[in-house]
Amino acid sequence: MDIEKVNSMDFGEFVDVFGNVIERCPLIAAAVWSKRPFSDLGDLEKHFFAFIDGLPLSGQEGVLRCHPELAGRELQWGRLTAESQREQRAAGLQNLGAAERLRLTELTAQYRARFGFPFVLAVRLSDPAAAPRELSRRLRCPPAQELRTALGEVKKICHLRLADLLGEQP
Amino acid sequence: MDIEKVNSMDFGEFVDVFGNVIERCPLIAAAVWSKRPFSDLGDLEKHFFAFIDGLPLSGQEGVLRCHPELAGRELQWGRLTAESQREQRAAGLQNLGAAERLRLTELTAQYRARFGFPFVLAVRLSDPAAAPRELSRRLRCPPAQELRTALGEVKKICHLRLADLLGEQP
Repeated sequence: MDIEKVNSMDFGEFVDVFGNVIERCPLIAAAVWSKRPFSDLGDLEKHFFAFIDGLPLSGQEGVLRCHPELAGRELQWGRLTAESQREQRAAGLQNLGAAERLRLTELTAQYRARFGFPFVLAVRLSDPAAAPRELSRRLRCPPAQELRTALGEVKKICHLRLADLLGEQP
Repeated sequence: MDIEKVNSMDFGEFVDVFGNVIERCPLIAAAVWSKRPFSDLGDLEKHFFAFIDGLPLSGQEGVLRCHPELAGRELQWGRLTAESQREQRAAGLQNLGAAERLRLTELTAQYRARFGFPFVLAVRLSDPAAAPRELSRRLRCPPAQELRTALGEVKKICHLRLADLLGEQP
């Protein structure tokens, strides 16, 4: 799909195609449609990022809270969005041993309790062993810094999903 | 469900329960969770409305674009969210005659083309005969005024859905 095709979409098509590049936030794709035409992938993603950056703190936390748990029950039960299911599976998070899964479950629960949103990680850019290590590290960060880190991961995921849709190298 | 129950929810439960009081915008419920505790229904809905009012223009248009077409194919095919399906059915929009449906289809297409978002109406507060009349009237409004009217309908729908969930008289 090239950028002319993207620019020719009505808002219904655009939201159907790009509604989940920010996990479970079709509102953001629906808002970004107002900014067309787009010159290229970089321009398109710039508007997604700018929308997130312009949200109040509660809205930025809200974006994070729309993300699923890493290696959680939704993955086991196949109830993730198609994109998340593919990403978490490809990262090997469905095949963790019992001890590793228990460890991740404990850490993600601590993380949620501390920050009020789930641990978000662009797992396509890491490996299964990195997730608990990153979690332990980020658990100790100050909340304001961790919010920025987590939104950075949301943007990495958005970039990868957009590149997939446009058939470009990320 | 009373307000103490609402205030005791973690963000996952809260988004599961309130994620669609603004149609297909779980981001907004996820953001409103930051504002707990809530004193009552009025306080809770105040935060939903304030979030919408604080969005940039593109975001407010985005909220509207997350709404389905009135009496559109998604209703015929049973692909609406549970809440929209119930509301549009109860308003008799599934049982329109062919001529009425064609008339509505033409008007909603004109509306989309003019304003860049779908026609939103709190159908539980009107009757099937009112929809085409309202549509014809609102089609002639200036865009800035129509945006305000449409967001007012989103808030009426939000109020009714919240009242249902809390078991209160709207």
